Amino acid sequence: MSAHVTIPPALAPDTLRIIPLGGLGDVGRNMTCFEINGEILLVDCGVFFPDDDHPGVDLILPGLDHLDDRLDDIVGMVLTHGHEDHVGAVPYLLRRRSDIPIWGSRLTLALVEGKLREHRIRNTDLQEVAEGDRAKVSEHFDLEFLAVNHSIPDALAVCLRTAGGTVLHTGDFKMDQLPLDGRITDLRGFARLGEEGVDLFMADSTNAEVPGFTTPEKDLVPALERVFERAENKLIVACFASHVHRVQQVLDLAVKHDRKVVYVGRSMVRNMSVARDLGFLKVPGDTLIELKDIDNYRDDQVVVISTGSQGEPLSALSRIANREHPVIEVGDHDTVLLASSLIPGNENAVYRVINGLSRLGATVVHKGNALVHVSGHASAGELLYCYNVIRPRNAMPIHGEIRHLIANAKLAQATGIPAESTLVVEDGAVVDLADGRATVVGAVDASYIFVDGSTVGDITTSELTDRKILGEEGFISVVAAVDLHSQSLVSGPDIHARGFSENDEAFAQVRKQIASELTKALTDGVDDTHRLQQVVRRTIGRWVSNTYRRRPMIVPVVIVT
Amino acid sequence: MSAHVTIPPALAPDTLRIIPLGGLGDVGRNMTCFEINGEILLVDCGVFFPDDDHPGVDLILPGLDHLDDRLDDIVGMVLTHGHEDHVGAVPYLLRRRSDIPIWGSRLTLALVEGKLREHRIRNTDLQEVAEGDRAKVSEHFDLEFLAVNHSIPDALAVCLRTAGGTVLHTGDFKMDQLPLDGRITDLRGFARLGEEGVDLFMADSTNAEVPGFTTPEKDLVPALERVFERAENKLIVACFASHVHRVQQVLDLAVKHDRKVVYVGRSMVRNMSVARDLGFLKVPGDTLIELKDIDNYRDDQVVVISTGSQGEPLSALSRIANREHPVIEVGDHDTVLLASSLIPGNENAVYRVINGLSRLGATVVHKGNALVHVSGHASAGELLYCYNVIRPRNAMPIHGEIRHLIANAKLAQATGIPAESTLVVEDGAVVDLADGRATVVGAVDASYIFVDGSTVGDITTSELTDRKILGEEGFISVVAAVDLHSQSLVSGPDIHARGFSENDEAFAQVRKQIASELTKALTDGVDDTHRLQQVVRRTIGRWVSNTYRRRPMIVPVVIVT
Repeated sequence: MSAHVTIPPALAPDTLRIIPLGGLGDVGRNMTCFEINGEILLVDCGVFFPDDDHPGVDLILPGLDHLDDRLDDIVGMVLTHGHEDHVGAVPYLLRRRSDIPIWGSRLTLALVEGKLREHRIRNTDLQEVAEGDRAKVSEHFDLEFLAVNHSIPDALAVCLRTAGGTVLHTGDFKMDQLPLDGRITDLRGFARLGEEGVDLFMADSTNAEVPGFTTPEKDLVPALERVFERAENKLIVACFASHVHRVQQVLDLAVKHDRKVVYVGRSMVRNMSVARDLGFLKVPGDTLIELKDIDNYRDDQVVVISTGSQGEPLSALSRIANREHPVIEVGDHDTVLLASSLIPGNENAVYRVINGLSRLGATVVHKGNALVHVSGHASAGELLYCYNVIRPRNAMPIHGEIRHLIANAKLAQATGIPAESTLVVEDGAVVDLADGRATVVGAVDASYIFVDGSTVGDITTSELTDRKILGEEGFISVVAAVDLHSQSLVSGPDIHARGFSENDEAFAQVRKQIASELTKALTDGVDDTHRLQQVVRRTIGRWVSNTYRRRPMIVPVVIVT
Repeated sequence: MSAHVTIPPALAPDTLRIIPLGGLGDVGRNMTCFEINGEILLVDCGVFFPDDDHPGVDLILPGLDHLDDRLDDIVGMVLTHGHEDHVGAVPYLLRRRSDIPIWGSRLTLALVEGKLREHRIRNTDLQEVAEGDRAKVSEHFDLEFLAVNHSIPDALAVCLRTAGGTVLHTGDFKMDQLPLDGRITDLRGFARLGEEGVDLFMADSTNAEVPGFTTPEKDLVPALERVFERAENKLIVACFASHVHRVQQVLDLAVKHDRKVVYVGRSMVRNMSVARDLGFLKVPGDTLIELKDIDNYRDDQVVVISTGSQGEPLSALSRIANREHPVIEVGDHDTVLLASSLIPGNENAVYRVINGLSRLGATVVHKGNALVHVSGHASAGELLYCYNVIRPRNAMPIHGEIRHLIANAKLAQATGIPAESTLVVEDGAVVDLADGRATVVGAVDASYIFVDGSTVGDITTSELTDRKILGEEGFISVVAAVDLHSQSLVSGPDIHARGFSENDEAFAQVRKQIASELTKALTDGVDDTHRLQQVVRRTIGRWVSNTYRRRPMIVPVVIVT
């Protein structure tokens, strides 16, 4: 985020350099760069979803520019799991070099493959791995993959054995002890690595502020069961399109309650098809139906599983709430379940959807009024288990805003890791690891890269500042044509305002003022377009400020004929 | 909110007409209009704070325009308490008629007086009342005031006895049974009114979705005490500038822990001075110090009580977090306590402040990690007590989004009020009460009125739509001067873009295209400014869409010389 750069020293031989290029300081755009003896290994390459600070921006990428001169030194990239904030930027990196070897689990790679097809990226090199696998990806990087439990199946942690030291990177994880698929976080593996000696432990900080333990997914059963029991009529369930286990729970309940299942929303249809094909989702025989066949069933014979749990305005659920969905309507006696988190910043959008559905008569069940969602991240209690079983020499919290990173660091220190070995750093920090010591040695630029329409990196914070002014204040453009010989106004001033009072009469007075100030300047001998435009800007700027107490953007154009 | 209008029938004699002009459908801009036999009585007149749907707007007013032709029929206005969402729009109503008699409690009127002074409104008519008072405000309205407990002292509920029926309006309230000031909600009074017969009960819905009972203010003591005990150095407490009881708790702890108190933030200084003068805040002897004297004390001898608990960018706390405050800095070993709610929509702003303070080294305690805030509104359990003790003939939930109103209505029905007597309506609905029956008879316009700079009502949703487009996409203006005689371009096209790529070279290609299309149109005989501008708009619009996949606002200006 910060563009504050302190050039790091040249990298010494057999020293492992670690540079977070995203995800340390934000929840999103996760990416870490590891380098030793001239080889670079990347872990994750995700996007950050813009908030109100980035109006109109589609996606925010990690600090890929840092790699521009080093693309050929990249020996591989590990993807820990298939969530957008860990894999969403892969196409943007692969546009720069398509054949970077990518290591990931079966489901992760399947989801990434779909993404690469959409972006029409070819000549890729995908290497499937599974928990327990070891891979010598290059001369200097020896990797081991460990199972972790998260809100998407088939997630992995990765251990990097290098001459500079051994690093354990958790990816995103939690420690549900009775997960639906029986695939627990490999704490025994963590313990074995601890025995062997972990020089640096990089653990997911997202829930480090949350005391205790994350509630197991299975504990949702009673509340979900109650929703099915009480649903008299139509039932719509919204959740993340990657949350295979949550969908599995809904599928199982649908079968039990004699309801057919229909997926709604492009990503839901696509992801659940991939998950089923790979065996991560078990769908009994004739449970699924197509949306077009929904009218062949009574309302109480179907459950709709939909996207839109974050209130995304174009999603199926928002359209249903606005009565704009071509097929699905809700009304009295219908039930909508949001089996999902509420990501900070999305509250207004989500409550807008809940209000819309409520207004139509539906009963809306959500995490605010029932236990229908649990987090995918380890809480403080789980992180303490990890620190104690691994006993790393150094800790460097990852994945979170600074408050999360600090909370995670405090947990590390509580288990006995010295403060000087607990590194709270943000994106761009350069950390060197050698002889069991991790040290901050500098900082590189890991600023936001904005994807805006079809452009990548064109939009800068300066344009975003302009957008904010325009969005809050609107603009006024003033166009006038002048003739320098006769020192007179030939045409205009024409005033065009948008996002501001558009009442043309309001400008009558200032139009005269501008005309008179311009004429005065011309007769005073001003013959420079820029200075004439300044006259216009000053005149209308003062008038707007006095009359409206506002500061719209002002664009004066003076044409000299 | 909705401008859907169904003209109500003429009001029959001795029928009480109730029109919510704000606060039913939103949390904010609370205002209800009561009318009988030609007399109008208002309850509350608050503002709604704009969210991301209303960029640049300063305040949103209730549907005051509905009263424009009836100003002289208003016999009085009751203000239930001094929060902005109940009194903030008073100056805007009084600008239309300053001498409307206003009935309110001592603290409420003191806060309103300050506001009226700021707005330079004179010739007002303020009538102080207290719990237990009865007031015959006019021929047809007989009022009784009852104590209610809320997050500001001196709040009142109001009972309206009219020929059309008896109405009990709670204002905002909760039922803390051991409040700091011992002033409980007058449930005994509610019971007495129930015995007498309440035709319509209008109860605060804000927390109707929350099961159980709102935690008492006193239960914060242990967590607040812990903050004081652990604070090694500087201590800053942020809370709402009207939350006198919360400030009282902090003051008491400050005395106990030998810290002086300094207020920071204009509204905090002003409100606490009013509260102290009126006896609502007890400040022991020499506890208070001035900000300018803070350097005479060690960091651990002071507690700063500050505004900015919602992350308002210009507030003291935000400036401290950004290291922009002229006097107060925070660093390692300092503590910041946010003893406040987190209003939906403010999450990003609040977390930005928490991250900023954390980055500077401060320990930040907030409702996410300690019990340092309780709500000011009655939860479902408390509302059930009210319905059961009052047993009203009809219920009409007030103060909340539709989801809150529906939840409140369900509580009413659970206590036995028939569904047809439970009115879930939104702003603008017209409800007639007579013979113990409340019926929806129509709807009037109660749309948002936007305060924008010094204008009221000038900005419409059309300008807000433009602002949203400008804020997300930016704009491109194209200026060209043409000569119709020679059918040629005289000057331009000049392209000015803001909030869009501002790289002038990017436009070289399209500039040529526009020139050639314009020349073609001119030689084809097009001589109409509007049509020439359409040519420009089409040409650049197509180019932007194809090149950038974006839709900035386009402002073409063709000057005919």
